[in-house]
Amino acid sequence: MGNDDSKVFIGKKNTLNYVMAAMMNLSEGRPSLLLARGKTISRAVDVGEIVINKFVKGASYGKIKIDTEKISNDRDGSISNVSSIEIEILPPPKK
Amino acid sequence: MGNDDSKVFIGKKNTLNYVMAAMMNLSEGRPSLLLARGKTISRAVDVGEIVINKFVKGASYGKIKIDTEKISNDRDGSISNVSSIEIEILPPPKK
Repeated sequence: MGNDDSKVFIGKKNTLNYVMAAMMNLSEGRPSLLLARGKTISRAVDVGEIVINKFVKGASYGKIKIDTEKISNDRDGSISNVSSIEIEILPPPKK
Repeated sequence: MGNDDSKVFIGKKNTLNYVMAAMMNLSEGRPSLLLARGKTISRAVDVGEIVINKFVKGASYGKIKIDTEKISNDRDGSISNVSSIEIEILPPPKK
C-alpha cells in the first residue's frame, strides 16, 4: 500500500493539517495512506471525507483496514491493545 | 448489506454492550453491521476488533464504508456534516 512517504499519521493536531499532508501526495499522483490509532480514528475518517468531498475532485477510497496494535507502557512495561485503522486514498484517475 | 435487525448503532454506552449486540446476530449466522457517526467511530472499530479477535472465532470483516451525513440542528435549523462509518462483520463460515 505505497511507500513510506505517502503515509500520514493522524494525531491530535487540527484536522486541516492532515488534510494538507494527504493532498500533497495526491497532487503528485500518489495514493495517500491515513494511519490512526484509538481516539484519533474518528479524525482520520474526517480527513478522508474532507479530502475526497471538498478538495480533491475524483479522489476515492482504496483499501480500508482495521487492526489491533499492542502498545507497551514505558513506565510499568504493561501491554495494552489499541484499535487502529488504515485508510487508503487514491488520486484521481489520469486523463 | 443485510436487513434492519442486523444493524448495531454505536452510541455512548459501554463498548461491551455493542459487542454483545453484534454477537447476537453472528450467533444466528447473520452478518452484523456496525454503524457510527463522529466521535463514536473509534468505538465502532473497537467493537469490531473485540468481536473478531476475542469472542467469535472465524468471524471476519466484510465491507467497510466511510461516508458523510448531514445532521440538522433542531434549535436553529443549521446543517452540519458528520463523518460516518459502516463496518460489516461476517459470521464464521459454515462447516
